[in-house]
Amino acid sequence: MPLFTDLARSLPATVPFVGPETLERRMGQAFRARLGANESVFGPSPAVVEAMARAATESWAYGDPEQYELKRAIAAHHGIGLENIAIGEGIDGLLGHLVHLATDPGDTVVTSYGAYPTFNYHVAGHGAKLDFVPYRPDAHEDAEALVERATALRPKLLYFANPDNPTGSWHDARTIEQMIDAVPEETILVLDEAYSDLAPEGALTPITLMRPNLLRFRTFSKAYGMAGVRVAYVVGEPATVAQFDKVRNHFGVSRIAQAGAIAALKDQAFLVDVVKKIAAARAALADIARRANMTPLASATNFVAIDCGGDGDYARGLLAAVLKRGVFIRMPGVAPLDRMIRVSAGRPDDLALFEDALFSAIDEIGRPNAR
Amino acid sequence: MPLFTDLARSLPATVPFVGPETLERRMGQAFRARLGANESVFGPSPAVVEAMARAATESWAYGDPEQYELKRAIAAHHGIGLENIAIGEGIDGLLGHLVHLATDPGDTVVTSYGAYPTFNYHVAGHGAKLDFVPYRPDAHEDAEALVERATALRPKLLYFANPDNPTGSWHDARTIEQMIDAVPEETILVLDEAYSDLAPEGALTPITLMRPNLLRFRTFSKAYGMAGVRVAYVVGEPATVAQFDKVRNHFGVSRIAQAGAIAALKDQAFLVDVVKKIAAARAALADIARRANMTPLASATNFVAIDCGGDGDYARGLLAAVLKRGVFIRMPGVAPLDRMIRVSAGRPDDLALFEDALFSAIDEIGRPNAR
Repeated sequence: MPLFTDLARSLPATVPFVGPETLERRMGQAFRARLGANESVFGPSPAVVEAMARAATESWAYGDPEQYELKRAIAAHHGIGLENIAIGEGIDGLLGHLVHLATDPGDTVVTSYGAYPTFNYHVAGHGAKLDFVPYRPDAHEDAEALVERATALRPKLLYFANPDNPTGSWHDARTIEQMIDAVPEETILVLDEAYSDLAPEGALTPITLMRPNLLRFRTFSKAYGMAGVRVAYVVGEPATVAQFDKVRNHFGVSRIAQAGAIAALKDQAFLVDVVKKIAAARAALADIARRANMTPLASATNFVAIDCGGDGDYARGLLAAVLKRGVFIRMPGVAPLDRMIRVSAGRPDDLALFEDALFSAIDEIGRPNAR
Repeated sequence: MPLFTDLARSLPATVPFVGPETLERRMGQAFRARLGANESVFGPSPAVVEAMARAATESWAYGDPEQYELKRAIAAHHGIGLENIAIGEGIDGLLGHLVHLATDPGDTVVTSYGAYPTFNYHVAGHGAKLDFVPYRPDAHEDAEALVERATALRPKLLYFANPDNPTGSWHDARTIEQMIDAVPEETILVLDEAYSDLAPEGALTPITLMRPNLLRFRTFSKAYGMAGVRVAYVVGEPATVAQFDKVRNHFGVSRIAQAGAIAALKDQAFLVDVVKKIAAARAALADIARRANMTPLASATNFVAIDCGGDGDYARGLLAAVLKRGVFIRMPGVAPLDRMIRVSAGRPDDLALFEDALFSAIDEIGRPNAR
C-alpha cells in the first residue's frame, strides 16, 4: 500500500516558476537587475514599509483569521460589501483553494494555451483536466473561442486574465461583459485581474458587476509592490465567496501582510506615482526593443513582451545569454508565445543594464533567421 | 449543475478557531490580556524584528520559492539535510497539503478525540473520514490505543501531538519510538511537535530518527514567538518530504517570514531565555489554579490546562465570565477535556489580570458542584 494517493504519485515535484535565487545559485553570481517576475522594483509605499515594520513587533500574535480590518479597507476602496471578499496568500493560494472547491478528479477546466502556469499546476494537483484554447495570432487571449469552448465542454472553471500575463495584452470592458454574460451558468469564470491597477481606461468592467459564477482575483503583488508579502483577494457574490471559508488556511495571511495591505490602500498617491513610473518604463522598454529591431507588444501591465522575431529556440538562446549577463528576465513557456521574451518595468538603471545585456547577447548569438 | 463539488457544498463555512479580534468586536471591548491562542507574549527576538523590518523594504520581490537559505539554517540547526525539509505557511498550511497528498475521499484518518481541530478541518475538507481514540483519563493521548486502532484500520494518517495541545501533556521518547516502530507501514505518523522547543529532557526522539512513514511538524509560532508571521516546517525522509513540492503554494512563505525565521534560529540565547520565562509563567499559572481550588495539569508547552473540577457546562460558563472580564483564554471543545480551561503563559501583569478575572468569575458563577 503506497503512502500517497495515486494522483499525488502521478504528479511531478515541480516549481511552476524557477526563482531568480535558484538561477543565481546555479550561475554562481547575483543578478544586477531583477526584471523577470513582474515584481515592482518601485517597491511598496514607505507607509507600507513602516506599517509592516510596526506589525513585525506585534507578530507574536496571530493575524485576525477573519481579516476584518483589511476587508473593511478593501470594501471601502471598491464600494462593495465585506461579504463580497475573501483574502488569501496571494492569487496563487486562492487559485489553489478554488480548484479544490470546484473540481473533482476528471472534471474539465478551460484556459488559454500558454496562460498562467500556476493555475494549471493547481488544476493538475487536484486531478482535473485542462483543455486549451490557443492565443489569437495577435497574442491576445481568444475571448470568443474560449466562450465557444466553454459552451461546448461546460467546464467547472474558465480562466481568463485581463490584462494578460505573459503577453501584457488586454481586452476592453465590453468584451469582458459579453464573456461574463455568455459563460455557461455552471462554469465559474476565473477572472484574473492581477494587473488591473495598471490597466488603461475602459479595460475593466466595474468590480460591482457580479454573477454567482464570476470571481475576480486582485493582488497587492503588482502595482502595490508587495509581491514578497503574500496578500491578495477574490471578489464575487457572497454565496460564491463564502466557499473559501471551507478550505482556506485561516491564519495564513500574516499580521504583517494585513497591516501592510491596509496601509497600501490608504496611500493611493503612491500608487498613482508608481503607475506613471511603470508607464514610462514600458515606453523605454519598447524603445529598447525597437532599437534592437525587435517588436514590443502593447502592454497594460508592469512588463513588456518582446517578439524577438525568431522561433522559440532563438528566444530561449537570447534569454540564456541575457541571464548570463546578470539580468533576470523570463519568457513564455510554450509556442507560439515562446517567440517572445518578457521584461518587467524597471528603474532607468535597471533598463540600461537590460539594454546593454540585450545588445551584447544579440552580438553573441546573432540575429534570428528571417521568417 | 452546481458550481462547487458535492464535498465542498457539504462542508460548513467555518473557522476552526474564533480569533480574539472577533470576540473583541462582539463584546465591543479590547482584551487586556491575550492568553488564549498559545502565542508567546514574550515576542520574537529583537534580532528577528530587525530582520523582518529590513526584509519589509525588500518585499517588492517574491521570497525564494525554494527557501534555500532558510532550509540551510534549519538543516544546520538540526544536523539534517536540506532534502529532509519542506517549509510552509504554518503547520496548518502544511497539514492541509499533507491531507491533500495522502487521502482520497472516504479514506480513514485516526486522531485523538479532542485533539487539534484544524487537522480535523483539513481532513473533512478533503472528504476523508475521521476515526477517534479517546484521551486517557489522565488527559494524555492514548499512544497504545492509537497504535492498536491504526493497526486495525490501516488509516492513511495517524495524528499525534507531542507535547500535546490542548492538554499540555507529553510522552517520553521511548513511547514515541515504540509508536514509530509499531505504526503500520502504509500509515503516515503525523507527529505534531509544535511545542517541541518547550519539551522537557527525554520527551523528544532525535529528529534524525526517520522513517518513510514519519513526518514531524515544527513551527516558529510558539517558543520563537512568531505566530503572526506564518512559517513552519516538516521533517522526514526525502522521498516523503518531496511530495509537498507537488501541491504547495511555492511563493507562500513570505520574504519577511524567511528572513525572520533565519534570524530566530541564530538567536538561540533569546530562545533559552523565553523558555525560562515560560516555565516560570507555567508555575505561576499552576499556583493561581491551586489557589482557586482547581487542578493545573503538568505542561510541556507554553500553556496550562486547568481542570475546573466541574463539567463542560461549568467550564464554558467560567470561560465566558473570564472573557467578559477582558482576559482572552480558550478551552478544549469536547468532553471529557472540556472540563478544563486553557491559559497561555504570560508576563506577570498578564497573569495578574487572569488571576483577578478568574477569582471574580468564580465569585459570579459559583463553584462547580462536587463530582
